[in-house]
Amino acid sequence: MKDMRYAIVGTGAIGGFYGGMLAKSGADVRFLLRSDYEYVKQNGLKVDSVFGDFHLNNVQAYSSSEEIGQVDVVLVCLKTTQNHLLSKILPPLLGESTTIVLIQNGIGVEADVALQFPKSAIVGGLGFICSNKLAPGHIAHLDFGRLTIGDYQLTKHEVLTQIAEDLNKAGVPCDIAPDLMLARWRKLVWNSPFNGMTVVLNTTTDRLINSPSTQPLIYQLMEEVVGAANACGVPLTKDFALKMIEMTKTMTPYSPSMKLDFDRKQEMEIEYIYSRPIALARAAGFEMVHTEMVERQLLFIEEQRKANT
Amino acid sequence: MKDMRYAIVGTGAIGGFYGGMLAKSGADVRFLLRSDYEYVKQNGLKVDSVFGDFHLNNVQAYSSSEEIGQVDVVLVCLKTTQNHLLSKILPPLLGESTTIVLIQNGIGVEADVALQFPKSAIVGGLGFICSNKLAPGHIAHLDFGRLTIGDYQLTKHEVLTQIAEDLNKAGVPCDIAPDLMLARWRKLVWNSPFNGMTVVLNTTTDRLINSPSTQPLIYQLMEEVVGAANACGVPLTKDFALKMIEMTKTMTPYSPSMKLDFDRKQEMEIEYIYSRPIALARAAGFEMVHTEMVERQLLFIEEQRKANT
Repeated sequence: MKDMRYAIVGTGAIGGFYGGMLAKSGADVRFLLRSDYEYVKQNGLKVDSVFGDFHLNNVQAYSSSEEIGQVDVVLVCLKTTQNHLLSKILPPLLGESTTIVLIQNGIGVEADVALQFPKSAIVGGLGFICSNKLAPGHIAHLDFGRLTIGDYQLTKHEVLTQIAEDLNKAGVPCDIAPDLMLARWRKLVWNSPFNGMTVVLNTTTDRLINSPSTQPLIYQLMEEVVGAANACGVPLTKDFALKMIEMTKTMTPYSPSMKLDFDRKQEMEIEYIYSRPIALARAAGFEMVHTEMVERQLLFIEEQRKANT
Repeated sequence: MKDMRYAIVGTGAIGGFYGGMLAKSGADVRFLLRSDYEYVKQNGLKVDSVFGDFHLNNVQAYSSSEEIGQVDVVLVCLKTTQNHLLSKILPPLLGESTTIVLIQNGIGVEADVALQFPKSAIVGGLGFICSNKLAPGHIAHLDFGRLTIGDYQLTKHEVLTQIAEDLNKAGVPCDIAPDLMLARWRKLVWNSPFNGMTVVLNTTTDRLINSPSTQPLIYQLMEEVVGAANACGVPLTKDFALKMIEMTKTMTPYSPSMKLDFDRKQEMEIEYIYSRPIALARAAGFEMVHTEMVERQLLFIEEQRKANT
C-alpha cells in the first residue's frame, strides 16, 4: 500500500503526542490548530515523552481543514465536548476512502459521527495514555501510551492494519480490537467510577480505592457498567470489575481525565462517559442506578461552573 | 404540679437558646458547660434572637453534672456525635422520675439512650430552628424556633405537658407529637437529602432544588425516606415528599446543620441521619439505594477530614 496521509484534528495532549510520534517517524502528518497555530508554525512541536523527548522543527501546521484538503486518515483527538465542531471540520478532509479515527472517551461517539458521515469508514480509538499540554506546541507524555483501534463501520481491513503498523513503526504501541464495543465498555468499567467520583469528592483514585466507604461503591459502579454492557449485548463479567479493583490498588495516585478537566475549569465529558451509557442501558432494560446519581452530581457541578463563568 | 428543675446538657446553639429562654422566663435552669464555663459564669449568657434579644446576667453555670445534681428534666442538646459522653454525664442528673429530652437529629438516638437508661422516661425533641453559637456565651437565633416533643418511653403525660407549657410560657412554640417516630421520619424526609447533598456538592438548598439535574435526585432521596419509613411501619406518603420539594422552592438559601458542621470542620452526624435509617430500613427489607450512596460519600469526606487533622 502507498504511504498514508494523516490529518490530526485537535493538536493537544493526545493529538500532539500521537501526531508528533507519527510525524517524527517520517509519516505525512498535517496538524489542524486553532489558538496554537502561529506558535507551532513558527516554533514547531516539542514533546517531552517517557518514550524519549523530541522536537519537530518543521510541522505541517494548518489553521483550517480546507487548507489541509483530503487525507487518507483523520485522527480526531478533540475532547468529545467539541464534537459539535466536526460537522464543519471534517468534510474538507474526506475523500472517497478517508478513514475517520475517533481517539476519544466513552460510549456512543462513533454512533453520533456515523449519523453525520454515514458513508465514511469510522474507527474507534482508545488511548491508554497519560499526557498533558503544558503550553502552545509543548506536550508532556507522562505515562503509558498504548492505542487500541477497532472498526466501527466500513473500515477496510488493510487500512486498519496499516494505521496500526504506522503507529507501531513510530514507536506507539497500537493494537487492533476485534470487537470495538467490547473494548469501549471494558475501558468504561474503570473510567465510569473513577472519572466522576474523583470530581464529586475532589480526590484521587488511590484514596477512593483505599477507603472502606468508597471501595464498595466503586465496585458497585463497576458492576453497573458490566450489567449495562451485558444488557447491550456486550460480554463482560464481574470478574473483570474485580480485576480493575485490584489493578487500581497497585496504581500510583491518579487523576482521571475528567478530574483534570474539572481542575482546569474545562467542560467535562459527561455526555459520552455517563449520559449515553445510561441511556443505552435503560433502552436495553437495565438501570444504572448509582451511575446515574454520579451523573446528576456531575451535571450539577457543571451547571454551577457555567453559571460562575 | 410543682415547678420543674431543668438541666441543659450542651449549652451551644440549641441548648443555649432553649435553656436561655426557659431561664429568662423564671424557670430553674442549670447549665452544664465545658470550654465556656468560666466565661458564662462570669459574663452570663447573651442571646440575639428574632424573638427579641436578651442577656442573662446570673446564669446557673456548672462544669460537672455531679455539681448540678438531680433534676426533673434534662434537655440533651449535644450533637449526636457527642452521645458517647452521655453514659458519664447523665447518671448524676437522674432521680427516680427524671425525664430525659433528646433534642437531637436523626433516627435512633432515643433507642441508643434507652439501652443505657432503660428505666428512665425518655422524650424525643425535634428543633425546627436556625441558631448558631457566635462566641462563648453568645448565641444567635436567626430563624424559626419551634420544638416538637414526644414520648419515646415511660414518660408521664403530665410531665410532657408541663415541659411544653413551660416552653410555651417562655416564648418557645412547643407542641407534642402523638407519634414521635412519625415526627422523626417526617423531619428526615427533608433532612436526609439536603444535609448530605449540600456537603457532597458544597452548595446550598436553593441551588439543589433549582437545578434540573439535582431536583429529581432530591426527590428520589425523599422517596427513599418515605419508603424506609413505610417499611419500618411509619405511615408517610410520597405526597409529603412532594410538599417538601415545593416548600424548599420557597425557602431562602439555607445550609443545613450538617453543612454548617462540615464548614466548621466538625464531625458530621452521619450515624443518626444516614447509617441508622439505612440499617433500620434494610432490616425491614427496604434498600435506601441512593441514600446509601450519599452516606458513603459523606463517610469518605469524614475520613479525609480526620486524616488531615
